[in-house]
Amino acid sequence: MNNNFPSWQTIIVNANIATMTDGANGYGEILNGAIAIENGTIVWVGCESELPEYDKQSVQVIDAKGQWVTPGFVDCHTHAVYGGNRANEFEMRLNGASYEEIAQAGGGIVSTVAATRAATTQELLDAALLRVRAMQAQGMTTIEIKSGYGLDTENEIKMLEVAQQIAQALPVSVQKTFLGAHAVPVEYKGKADEYIKLVCQEMIPQVAKQNIADAVDVFCEGIGFSAEQTEQVFLAAKQAGLRVKVHAEQLSNLGGTELAAKYQALSSDHIEFLDEAGICAMKQADMTAVLLPGAFYFLRETQLPPIELLRKYGVAMAVATDANPGTSPINSPQLMLNMACTLFRLTPAEALAGLTCHGAKALGLSDCKGQIALGYDADIAIWNISQPAELCYQIGVNPLTKLFYKGSIVIEH
Amino acid sequence: MNNNFPSWQTIIVNANIATMTDGANGYGEILNGAIAIENGTIVWVGCESELPEYDKQSVQVIDAKGQWVTPGFVDCHTHAVYGGNRANEFEMRLNGASYEEIAQAGGGIVSTVAATRAATTQELLDAALLRVRAMQAQGMTTIEIKSGYGLDTENEIKMLEVAQQIAQALPVSVQKTFLGAHAVPVEYKGKADEYIKLVCQEMIPQVAKQNIADAVDVFCEGIGFSAEQTEQVFLAAKQAGLRVKVHAEQLSNLGGTELAAKYQALSSDHIEFLDEAGICAMKQADMTAVLLPGAFYFLRETQLPPIELLRKYGVAMAVATDANPGTSPINSPQLMLNMACTLFRLTPAEALAGLTCHGAKALGLSDCKGQIALGYDADIAIWNISQPAELCYQIGVNPLTKLFYKGSIVIEH
Ligand SMILES: [Zn+2]
Ligand SMILES: [Zn+2]
Repeated sequence: MNNNFPSWQTIIVNANIATMTDGANGYGEILNGAIAIENGTIVWVGCESELPEYDKQSVQVIDAKGQWVTPGFVDCHTHAVYGGNRANEFEMRLNGASYEEIAQAGGGIVSTVAATRAATTQELLDAALLRVRAMQAQGMTTIEIKSGYGLDTENEIKMLEVAQQIAQALPVSVQKTFLGAHAVPVEYKGKADEYIKLVCQEMIPQVAKQNIADAVDVFCEGIGFSAEQTEQVFLAAKQAGLRVKVHAEQLSNLGGTELAAKYQALSSDHIEFLDEAGICAMKQADMTAVLLPGAFYFLRETQLPPIELLRKYGVAMAVATDANPGTSPINSPQLMLNMACTLFRLTPAEALAGLTCHGAKALGLSDCKGQIALGYDADIAIWNISQPAELCYQIGVNPLTKLFYKGSIVIEH
Repeated sequence: MNNNFPSWQTIIVNANIATMTDGANGYGEILNGAIAIENGTIVWVGCESELPEYDKQSVQVIDAKGQWVTPGFVDCHTHAVYGGNRANEFEMRLNGASYEEIAQAGGGIVSTVAATRAATTQELLDAALLRVRAMQAQGMTTIEIKSGYGLDTENEIKMLEVAQQIAQALPVSVQKTFLGAHAVPVEYKGKADEYIKLVCQEMIPQVAKQNIADAVDVFCEGIGFSAEQTEQVFLAAKQAGLRVKVHAEQLSNLGGTELAAKYQALSSDHIEFLDEAGICAMKQADMTAVLLPGAFYFLRETQLPPIELLRKYGVAMAVATDANPGTSPINSPQLMLNMACTLFRLTPAEALAGLTCHGAKALGLSDCKGQIALGYDADIAIWNISQPAELCYQIGVNPLTKLFYKGSIVIEH
């Protein structure tokens, strides 16, 4: 074009925008706004009345019809790749079986590890795609997926490869986390230290060499790994040049979060039992608190995460599905918004920040995901709602009308 | 056809069938089963190997591919027709507003009544259709819808007419319940007895005359109506030839259930505070206990309904969404299955019975809905699951692959 007007690919007009640029302080609202997209990136955002002139020849104009526009959801904590499911164990427990009986019947994480090892890459991919598609249909554009059901080098890497294939099969961003230190596999029963040695000396170097993970996670808990074992894994990750994060303080306080802060972890996740010292350490290390109300609900926990203290220290709170077969068989980001409000008493603005800008922060993607702002990926959801809080309030009716991934429409109703 | 073989319209083969003919005792499983449909009705069900010869010329054969087949869901307690929503109030409360502040801002049921009165029939219908479609997409084929946000003759009937229009707009069965005694409208503030007089002397006769409701309901509670007022409504309903049911024992025990039993009520709903005498009365009157885990969740109740006693007395337990803007803004039957198990500790078989055969019983439809059995309506769901408990275990992935309403496919994936 021979004029000086920008030649945008797409602009969204007539939109009420929750930019989520203010963290949890509010929605960062722009009423009667517009967004311009070029090469999958947001290149202009503001009041429609201030939209500069642009080349109208080639642009695709999307009329949002006064609906609300948010960043696509960023689900920063999932275990969405796994074999089998645990419906059988769920039913046994409700029929009165004891944990022992369930263990004897092959239940628990052991059963998921066995099913994941037995599954082919294609089988794992097919099963995971069902889950990821369900989440995408609710507005998710970025997902973190952990390994942790292989528990040997080959199967841990198989899981991470499946996570990678999801990003090739669907228009979503996938962040891959190596969670070899999720549980002690049966063949290392009673030899957790030896298993941690395998994780540190073989798995992490191999994962780093193949460049197949973006971060390393550890389940630091009485039923997981000790603080000492966790630190071994953090050291190995550091050596391999990988960022760390931690499942910590879910059922007790082992100090996993403080330890993670020493290693500049991205996030500490669950944290129902986290104390003020741990929160202070998180703040100093600029870590994100990842809240997982689905697991809290499914396990019928009663200890709430320390929301007031997290607010007091200004620690960013992310909200994620924790999608996994044992403790949160939930592939619904929208339900997580409601549960974050209903169970954890987050405000709707905090909950929405948790699934957008703060979810992105938990993944180290604060500069490109989770906000409708200049230079950010054009991952954008349009919702048939009259105020953002409706996303948190209502369950079951999916108000998504359009979903953009990097500027392209991937869902349209 | 000139043979003696039956000429069925449709048969479903290669199906694992949860017939739900055994109540909550189990799924009434038929493995490798088949179902034959004629004129919207189930005319044969059994093992496929025992299928009689049939005329293969004109029949539509549906291969269920080994998937599970259940009755379509019967949601026996909803308030799915209403104006506006209460997201604003939800957000205010989470931002620390007191009940007084919310009331001053026009919140509470008053706001829904105002919005419902202000809405046109078409507006109410459009909003309700979004909700009912979402429920149908999860396998629902029969829904009960209550009035109760009009609170004057004209608007109560308007709501029931909208409920009727839903049955014309969508392939679902709609049962309509008159709930004029839901709350005291503002114009009768402090004059509840006068309002009950209006309900009994004007509304119920008018509703009966127009034949626009299948039953009459009352909210018997400290914040609703007293047992005496409830009985007035029951008497008027009896006079008008309408069955009754009751919202009772949700927040306290006013004896509403026992009273309802005296009037051969269909069901008593909520019943967290119901005692053994009430349960005994329910059993004697063959009433159904309608459990509403969505409201329990949303209100963060802690008093569980008396499940063990209900089991002991063999009272049928239904499970329903209670879809409503104030205390259960949830249009997800599948989530109710999970919540019934997770929060109320129902077994998956009990939960599924709650949304099928016992939901039908709560509506007086035990002879035609909620079971896969001879002579029943062919309202049938096919699910991509490997065992029925998966319907209760998993949230977010919708495994529905086909839904039949009266023998016709209405959803297909
Ligand atoms: Zn996790
Ligand atoms: Zn109700």
